[in-house]
Amino acid sequence: MSQSILVIGAGKSSSSLISYLLGFCETNSYKLIVGDLSEELAKSRVKDSNIAEAIRFDINDSEVRSHYIQQSTVVISMLPAFMHPIVAKDCLKYKKHLVTASYISEEIQQMHEDAIKKGILIMGEMGLDPGIDHMSAMKIIDDIKKKGGQIKSFKSFTGGLIAPESDNNPWHYKFSWNPRNVVLAGQGTASYLLNGKKRYIPYQRLFSELESVGLNEVGEFDGYANRDSLHYIEKYNLEGIDTILRGTLRYGGYCQAWNIFVQLGLTDDSFVIDDADRLTYLEFIKSFLPSGVSDIVGYLINNFGATKEIINKIEWLEILSDRRIKLERGTPAQILQHLLEEKWKLEQYDKDMIVMQHQFEYDIEGQRKSHISNLVVKGENQVDTAMAKTVGLPMGILAKLILKRKTNLRGVQIPVMSEVYEPVLSELDGLGVKFFSS
Amino acid sequence: MSQSILVIGAGKSSSSLISYLLGFCETNSYKLIVGDLSEELAKSRVKDSNIAEAIRFDINDSEVRSHYIQQSTVVISMLPAFMHPIVAKDCLKYKKHLVTASYISEEIQQMHEDAIKKGILIMGEMGLDPGIDHMSAMKIIDDIKKKGGQIKSFKSFTGGLIAPESDNNPWHYKFSWNPRNVVLAGQGTASYLLNGKKRYIPYQRLFSELESVGLNEVGEFDGYANRDSLHYIEKYNLEGIDTILRGTLRYGGYCQAWNIFVQLGLTDDSFVIDDADRLTYLEFIKSFLPSGVSDIVGYLINNFGATKEIINKIEWLEILSDRRIKLERGTPAQILQHLLEEKWKLEQYDKDMIVMQHQFEYDIEGQRKSHISNLVVKGENQVDTAMAKTVGLPMGILAKLILKRKTNLRGVQIPVMSEVYEPVLSELDGLGVKFFSS
Repeated sequence: MSQSILVIGAGKSSSSLISYLLGFCETNSYKLIVGDLSEELAKSRVKDSNIAEAIRFDINDSEVRSHYIQQSTVVISMLPAFMHPIVAKDCLKYKKHLVTASYISEEIQQMHEDAIKKGILIMGEMGLDPGIDHMSAMKIIDDIKKKGGQIKSFKSFTGGLIAPESDNNPWHYKFSWNPRNVVLAGQGTASYLLNGKKRYIPYQRLFSELESVGLNEVGEFDGYANRDSLHYIEKYNLEGIDTILRGTLRYGGYCQAWNIFVQLGLTDDSFVIDDADRLTYLEFIKSFLPSGVSDIVGYLINNFGATKEIINKIEWLEILSDRRIKLERGTPAQILQHLLEEKWKLEQYDKDMIVMQHQFEYDIEGQRKSHISNLVVKGENQVDTAMAKTVGLPMGILAKLILKRKTNLRGVQIPVMSEVYEPVLSELDGLGVKFFSS
Repeated sequence: MSQSILVIGAGKSSSSLISYLLGFCETNSYKLIVGDLSEELAKSRVKDSNIAEAIRFDINDSEVRSHYIQQSTVVISMLPAFMHPIVAKDCLKYKKHLVTASYISEEIQQMHEDAIKKGILIMGEMGLDPGIDHMSAMKIIDDIKKKGGQIKSFKSFTGGLIAPESDNNPWHYKFSWNPRNVVLAGQGTASYLLNGKKRYIPYQRLFSELESVGLNEVGEFDGYANRDSLHYIEKYNLEGIDTILRGTLRYGGYCQAWNIFVQLGLTDDSFVIDDADRLTYLEFIKSFLPSGVSDIVGYLINNFGATKEIINKIEWLEILSDRRIKLERGTPAQILQHLLEEKWKLEQYDKDMIVMQHQFEYDIEGQRKSHISNLVVKGENQVDTAMAKTVGLPMGILAKLILKRKTNLRGVQIPVMSEVYEPVLSELDGLGVKFFSS
C-alpha cells in the first residue's frame, strides 16, 4: 500500500497545512485524505488535486473513523483538543502515527507506554505556540549548553496579532484563530518561576500583572502569563533555572481593557442567560453591575481604574449601547464572543501578524550574558494567515519526516529534540518563518 | 418482608438523622441499616440497638450496593452529591425510594420520568439549606396566596454559624459542616432577580456585594448571594415576582476578610502545588503576590482596602507566619483548608448555631405588606450540632412519612408541596426547630 496522510478538520487553520501537504504528496505520489464534518469545506481545500480525496468525516462515526485511520500512515488531527483522545485510541489500535498542535493532555500522556509498544509516534504541541516556540527555544538552549553556558532565566512570549497596516480599531486586535479560546484565555491560575520562587497569578489579576516586551521596529507589547510555565522546566531540561515564564502578547492597552470584562464577570462560561435576545448590550452589562449603579462609565473609572483610553475601547464595541443581542441564549462568554466576532473580524485583505520573542540570560565563563531571539511573520490575507502558516507548517513538515523515515521517535512527545527541531526549523526558515536576534 | 431504611454515610452530619431513625424504627419494628466506608464509624452510630445493623459500605462495590438497596424500602444517601446518581440508578432498578439533602443535579433531574414509571420518589434538597428553607418559605408563600396576596419580593438567607457563647475567634466562625464546601463556596457566578431585572455577581465580587441582615437579639449578619436564585422562581411558583435572592449568612467582617483570600487566588482548586511541605505559610502567601511586594500588609491595605480588623483576622490565622505547611502537596484551596480546619475547629463543648431569615414583601388589598420569618437553632456540642439536626431530621421525618404511606409523591422532587412541608415542619417544630416572626 502506498503511504498516505489523513488530515481531520479542514477549518481556517488547516489552509496552509493542506496546501503544503498537497505539494509534498504530489511530488512523492503519496495520497492525501482531508476529512471534515462539511464535505464542501474539505473539497474546497483539496481543489482538483488528483492525489487528494475530500470526505465527510464525523469523529463520532466509528466506522468511517476506523476505515480512514486504518488506510493512513500519519493522521493529523486539527480537531478541538478534547476530541484528540478518540483519534489517538484508533491510532494506537491500527498502529498509525498521530500529530496535533494541541497541548498534551493527561489522557494523551497516559498513552505513552502503549504508543512505544505499538511503535507509533503521538506528537503533540506541534503548531506555533505550543510548537515553534518549543523548537526554537530548545535550539538556543542546546546551543548555549553546548558552549558550556548555564541558563539562568528564560522568558518566552507569543502573540497572534493584527499587522500594523491592517490595524484600524482601538483594541489593535482581530481574530486570527478560534475566538472562543481568546475569550476564555487565562481562566484558572497561571504559574511561573521567578528568581527561584514559584509564583501564581489568579485569573482576576492576570490581565493587570503585565510584562513589557519590545521588538525593534515592530512595536511595544504587553505580555501576560500563560497557564503553566513550571511544567516546561523539566520538558526543556532546565532544572536549576531561576526564572521561567511563558506568556501571551497583546498590543499595549488591550489587557487593561480586557481586565474590565474579567472583573465584571463577562467571560464566565459556566451558566446560561436564557433570555439573551430580549436584552440590549447595555442591559447585559448592567446586569453585572452592583445594584444602584447608574453611571456605568463613572463606576468603571472609580472601581477598576479605567482610563479614557479604556473607556474608548469599550464604547467602540457598542457594548454600552442599546443594540440588541442577537443570540437567543448563551453564556456571558458566548454573548461577548458573538459581538467580538463582528467587531474583531479579520477582513478579506487584512494581514495578521505573529510575534514571538525568547529572552535568555545565561552564565558562561563567569559572565552573565543575554540573548534575545525574535520571530515576526505576517499573513497575506483573511485565508492565508500567518496563524494558519505557523500552526500548520510544522505539522506538515513533521508528517513528511515521518513518511520519509527521517525520524524514529516513538511514544507521546513534544518537539524538544534536535532530530525534530533541526529539520523542521530549517525548512520553516526556507518558507519564510525566520528567527532573528536583537 | 418488613420495611427497612438504609442510610449510606455515617459521618458527622448523620448523627441526628441516625438517632432519630433508631427511635422511630424501634417503635415501629422497622429495620435500620447504616453503611459507611468505615464499619467502625457505622457501629458507633447504631450503638447496641437490636433493630439496627452497621455494615461496611463501599459505593463502588456494586455487589454490596445492590444487595443492601434491594433489601430496603427507603434509601437515604449522605454521600457527596456527585455520588448520588450511582445510588439513584440502583434505586430505579430495584424500585426503592431515595432521599438526599443535596441540590438536584441535571443528571438526577433526568431520572424524573423513569422514577414515575417505576413508582418511586427521589426527593432531593431535603436538608437545611436546601430543605427547611424550601419548606418554610413555601408554607408562607402558599398562605399569602391563599389570602389573596401577591408576592413581590422574596429574600432568604441561611447561615451555619457559631453560637455567641462559643465564639472566641476574630472570624466569628467555626466549621459545623464540610470545610471543603466552605472554602470553595461561591465559585462561579451568582444570579438573582432585583426589581424585575436579572443580576449576576461573579465570584471575584461575591464577597464584596453584601446585604445586611439583622435578627433581633441574635445579631447583625452579612449575606452574600447563593449561586442560582433564578431557578427557584419556577420551583416556588413565583412567576411574575420582582425580586428573589437566596443568600448565605456570616457574622460582620467575615466576608470582607475572606474576599482577600479570593482576590489573592488562595481558594483555587484547579492546580496542585507539589512542594507545599517545603513552604511556610508566609512563602505560600508571597507566591500569590505580584513580584516585588515586600510589605504584604501594606499591599493588602492599598490594593484590597483591608482594614485593621481584616488584617487582624488574617494574622490570627498565622497565615503570614513562618509556620510550615504540613500538607505534602495540595491545591491552594486544600492548603488553606488544612490550616482553617485547625483554626476554625468546633471544640468538644462548642455550640454551633443555624440562623435562617425569610423576608417577604407582598401586595394585598391594594397595600404593600412585609413579613419576616426567622429560625435560630443552637447545637449542644461538637457532635450534636444544630447543623446535623437541621440537615438530618427533615430526611428522617420524610422517610417516616414514606414508610407510613403518608405520601404518594413520585418522581424527582424537592420539598415545596404542602403534603410534605406541613407534616415535616410540624414535627420539626415539636423537635425544637421553630420559626418565629419579627
